[in-house]
Amino acid sequence: MTKHLERDLDSLKRELLDLCAMAEDATNKAILALTDRRPELAEEVRRGDDAIDEKEVKIEEDCLKILALHQPVAADLRFIVTALKVNSDLERIGDLAINIAERASYLASHEPLAVPMDFPKLVERAQSMVRRSLEALFARDAAAARDVLKMDDEADRLTKEMFKALHKVMHDDPSTIERAVNLLSASRHLERIADQATNIAEDVVFLVEGEIIRHENP
Amino acid sequence: MTKHLERDLDSLKRELLDLCAMAEDATNKAILALTDRRPELAEEVRRGDDAIDEKEVKIEEDCLKILALHQPVAADLRFIVTALKVNSDLERIGDLAINIAERASYLASHEPLAVPMDFPKLVERAQSMVRRSLEALFARDAAAARDVLKMDDEADRLTKEMFKALHKVMHDDPSTIERAVNLLSASRHLERIADQATNIAEDVVFLVEGEIIRHENP
Repeated sequence: MTKHLERDLDSLKRELLDLCAMAEDATNKAILALTDRRPELAEEVRRGDDAIDEKEVKIEEDCLKILALHQPVAADLRFIVTALKVNSDLERIGDLAINIAERASYLASHEPLAVPMDFPKLVERAQSMVRRSLEALFARDAAAARDVLKMDDEADRLTKEMFKALHKVMHDDPSTIERAVNLLSASRHLERIADQATNIAEDVVFLVEGEIIRHENP
Repeated sequence: MTKHLERDLDSLKRELLDLCAMAEDATNKAILALTDRRPELAEEVRRGDDAIDEKEVKIEEDCLKILALHQPVAADLRFIVTALKVNSDLERIGDLAINIAERASYLASHEPLAVPMDFPKLVERAQSMVRRSLEALFARDAAAARDVLKMDDEADRLTKEMFKALHKVMHDDPSTIERAVNLLSASRHLERIADQATNIAEDVVFLVEGEIIRHENP
């Protein structure tokens, strides 16, 4: 690898690390806004989105420049393609965080909804999947990435339980419908954040092992 | 451009056209399953997904091979990167079609829900956005792609109206809650299909004009 390519790849990694931190921060704030009823955090998530979008565009431009200038092959080429994909995944996590923040703002301005369900566990699961998929990416650790894939079933199961519990709440008291639909929507977005973490983990396996494992049955 | 690169790019375009046709077909079938209460079509969508997944993996492998073998630059490089992204978007449209098909199966096995809303219009809008974004891609027509972007606001507006109408239905008759939530979910997936069409249209503008227009306010 030339010195010049090495330098450009290092700079790309730093940009990607920045975007990771921004997406994780947005997710954590949106979740806190929801669970602790803090609309000011929801507002912070909304305000932070432009920076995430700018960073995503910058990273894509950098990937294209590296491809055009250095015409990398083998592991370097795989890293660039992975960076392009993870870049999109992180930007989408930012968008999902905004969706959660919007639901959080609505819910914080209405009476609390008592729902007999394990929402904190779903939250913890989604956050942990995002964090671990990013750690696996930067450590190029395929085994850690495969662990993230295993966690997704549990996230799906928890979301289904939420749905059941919320249907019951709405049935028992129709005055809860708007709030329950908002909470349903927030948990769906949370599940989609877990899905994005799964995408990143699959990309890490591809990066490390050079094998596309999407769509394989676990 | 070498003859060899030209041949590989042509073959990539054909693969991408195939995947476009498959994703469009899945969307149309899922929508028919929903609007005409035809669970057998929902089943067809589910069965067709493996072929979509295989095609997506094949296209990604082809893109990587072309990058590694020919080290294309300028317009050819942009086309490969666009192909990588559109490939993911199409596969996601396939997944969303399955989600709609699942809601359609549920709804077809329950009593019909009378909802005073313009669902056919939302359906027509989403289908037309997908079709037009793909036409713009293969014609490399940035103006047509920008038209698709303008259609997205209308899709958002129609979805919001649906939500209002469905909230009212649930309030007026709580026995409709499960069905209404399923229909809500289907229309959200439909809106996300429109979003994917928007992504494709943005990628077409990038391909033609070499400019990243994502996140610009229209």
